[in-house]
Amino acid sequence: MQHEFLISTRGQGLYEFTSQVRDWLRPCGHDGLLTLFVRHTSCSLLIQENADPEVQTDLQAFFERLVPHSDHPSMSYLRHTYEGPDDMPAHIKAVMMPVSLSIPVSGGVPALGTWQGVFLFEHRRSPHTRKVMAHLG
Amino acid sequence: MQHEFLISTRGQGLYEFTSQVRDWLRPCGHDGLLTLFVRHTSCSLLIQENADPEVQTDLQAFFERLVPHSDHPSMSYLRHTYEGPDDMPAHIKAVMMPVSLSIPVSGGVPALGTWQGVFLFEHRRSPHTRKVMAHLG
Amino acid sequence: MQHEFLISTRGQGLYEFTSQVRDWLRPCGHDGLLTLFVRHTSCSLLIQENADPEVQTDLQAFFERLVPHSDHPSMSYLRHTYEGPDDMPAHIKAVMMPVSLSIPVSGGVPALGTWQGVFLFEHRRSPHTRKVMAHLG
Repeated sequence: MQHEFLISTRGQGLYEFTSQVRDWLRPCGHDGLLTLFVRHTSCSLLIQENADPEVQTDLQAFFERLVPHSDHPSMSYLRHTYEGPDDMPAHIKAVMMPVSLSIPVSGGVPALGTWQGVFLFEHRRSPHTRKVMAHLG
Repeated sequence: MQHEFLISTRGQGLYEFTSQVRDWLRPCGHDGLLTLFVRHTSCSLLIQENADPEVQTDLQAFFERLVPHSDHPSMSYLRHTYEGPDDMPAHIKAVMMPVSLSIPVSGGVPALGTWQGVFLFEHRRSPHTRKVMAHLG
Repeated sequence: MQHEFLISTRGQGLYEFTSQVRDWLRPCGHDGLLTLFVRHTSCSLLIQENADPEVQTDLQAFFERLVPHSDHPSMSYLRHTYEGPDDMPAHIKAVMMPVSLSIPVSGGVPALGTWQGVFLFEHRRSPHTRKVMAHLG
């Protein structure tokens, strides 16, 4: 069983879509393995804490400092800059964070821990519609 | 077939559980795909060299320097600090390293390379019991 | 269905093998899930942009700066150095980037986005033959 989730983003940050994933899995009702795969090279999939929103802003702040935009002096060695100063850093972050996630499913329920949510992490500044393929096997 | 491994940790570091994984897979005897999924947001799953223990201490040393505790001056921008100075760095490291791993299985044996072991990487200082879901499909 | 891809590398950098993956999947013709798993601890699997080769050289340049070789003064704390100055940094990079990738397959075609290619990222300086296990389920 396959499905494509569409996630609308409005700039850099984390966008949770746990409830959409749960809703899609529920009718199947049996055990299996859910795989999520993002069809882009400038955003990521994350499983992270969804209780305190400061976790999400701190995550974003850390990665902005670790991978500054390409107009920052420390990044002057970057060559792929014609799509904007946030583009090559987006590719770098997309390499450091998951493009695919696999989550066991028990009785139609994903085996997420108490505090785990499923997020798309948008690394570009401008709005995008992101495609996430889901496969339940 | 699903199973939950429990890994007891005693502070930051790598905890190998390759033999538990091999023991669980052996009776099945056929080809398949093993997926491991950790149900927490402050530890990671790793596949790494299990020959020289200095690889493990070096890995830990590198990530301590890359993501210092939140009482370090360079991390003063972090906001999610009330669970202790090792908490938000643990979330950051959990984003940079795998939450799920998928390993092909041939005749009941995981296709690990000669030097590959399966580890839980604990990012918190205090002892924890960590839950790792296994799915064999 | 399982297969082992062999990727010959000639030093640090990205080696694309998207076409080999597509060729192997095509005869199956149905929906499924492709999992790739690299059987080594000093190289990684990546999905990244395959249009502009500067993305690949920029990725390599970033990770060389983030994880310098162990003969660099900033890395003097590393202990696992007897296999050469590029060895422990290779293990560190192998922890930060995927060892396994899972890609949904629709009608024998992997659900890669327009710009996504599948790469092996070699972290060692010397030539290697790298083994990548593929499982289609």
